[in-house]
Amino acid sequence: MKSLTALDQLIESLRCLPGVGPKSAQRMAYHLLQRDRNGAQHLAMSLQNALSRIHHCLKCNNFSESEVCDLCASGKRDAHQLCVVEMPTDLLMLEQTQTYHGMYFVLMGRLSPLDGVGPKEIHLDRLLKRAQDGEVQEVILATNYTVEGEATAHYVGELLKARGLKVSRIARGLPMGGEIEHVDIGTLAQAMMERRSLR
Amino acid sequence: MKSLTALDQLIESLRCLPGVGPKSAQRMAYHLLQRDRNGAQHLAMSLQNALSRIHHCLKCNNFSESEVCDLCASGKRDAHQLCVVEMPTDLLMLEQTQTYHGMYFVLMGRLSPLDGVGPKEIHLDRLLKRAQDGEVQEVILATNYTVEGEATAHYVGELLKARGLKVSRIARGLPMGGEIEHVDIGTLAQAMMERRSLR
Repeated sequence: MKSLTALDQLIESLRCLPGVGPKSAQRMAYHLLQRDRNGAQHLAMSLQNALSRIHHCLKCNNFSESEVCDLCASGKRDAHQLCVVEMPTDLLMLEQTQTYHGMYFVLMGRLSPLDGVGPKEIHLDRLLKRAQDGEVQEVILATNYTVEGEATAHYVGELLKARGLKVSRIARGLPMGGEIEHVDIGTLAQAMMERRSLR
Repeated sequence: MKSLTALDQLIESLRCLPGVGPKSAQRMAYHLLQRDRNGAQHLAMSLQNALSRIHHCLKCNNFSESEVCDLCASGKRDAHQLCVVEMPTDLLMLEQTQTYHGMYFVLMGRLSPLDGVGPKEIHLDRLLKRAQDGEVQEVILATNYTVEGEATAHYVGELLKARGLKVSRIARGLPMGGEIEHVDIGTLAQAMMERRSLR
């Protein structure tokens, strides 16, 4: 890094952002330096702030600034239901449907052996422990209806059923290959209400 | 900003990047926090570093960490020629053609009245002063062959000619509507060599 200029370093650093190649990174660096130095300053501070303050909730594994996130700490949620989702966005989408009032567990990914994402990477040991807290009576698998999301649901479902838990899957109201993040609220609400028990 | 969480703040801050909307910003924030905290740390530091160290060269107006950039400070360049480009990338592309050995002036933009970019924003006062240093004998206008680039070349050319300077324009070897940054080196080299005097 020693021989790189500050500009080259900035361009190189911007490439850690997903979907940003060399040309985009260069365009971003020029834009920030030329037109939006305030924005760049805010971004630098927000990054530092987020890195130091954001960790994972001990209960649901979602991003959280406190040890246990607001949703898990809330006394108003139904502790008998545990909904498993891939990403924080999926949780937010489900909350918007207002059809579910239980707890969550966020995998922060999905099983994908080719990308090196196995049971450990999606924290299945913590999920199994969480699901067996004595209060949870039903685990609702709300992973995407993609190949990887389905495989994850199947794998997780088998593990949970082997431990005597009732496991359900949100209804296939979603189109095949669709992702929870991008579906409309109505379809998602129907899928939540028509969840079916895994036999 | 007080009621926003650190995560919301980060997502909001990422939107200062050109071409990044709400969904992309969210995806970037999750990616950084979940998979690339080191990258985020580097990005924050590079931003701070760039903001504090990168300014504009007093002679050519390009980004520079010193008062006068390496190219302007070099004794090997022909001080009789001054090439005017829109952006730093254009300068880099011209250098790659190895057909030009004079000095540069970087406008850091192009005339665009609808976007509020006038003569002041592209530093024309400094360009005029730079071109009249007594050494410059020819000003080569290498703005893009887009509508705005052409208008800029025309406007700048008239001002320079009124001051008795010889003004030329890189040849129309570039395709209409094309941008210097994206053209192939061969075409750009031809355009540089076939520059024509403005009458």
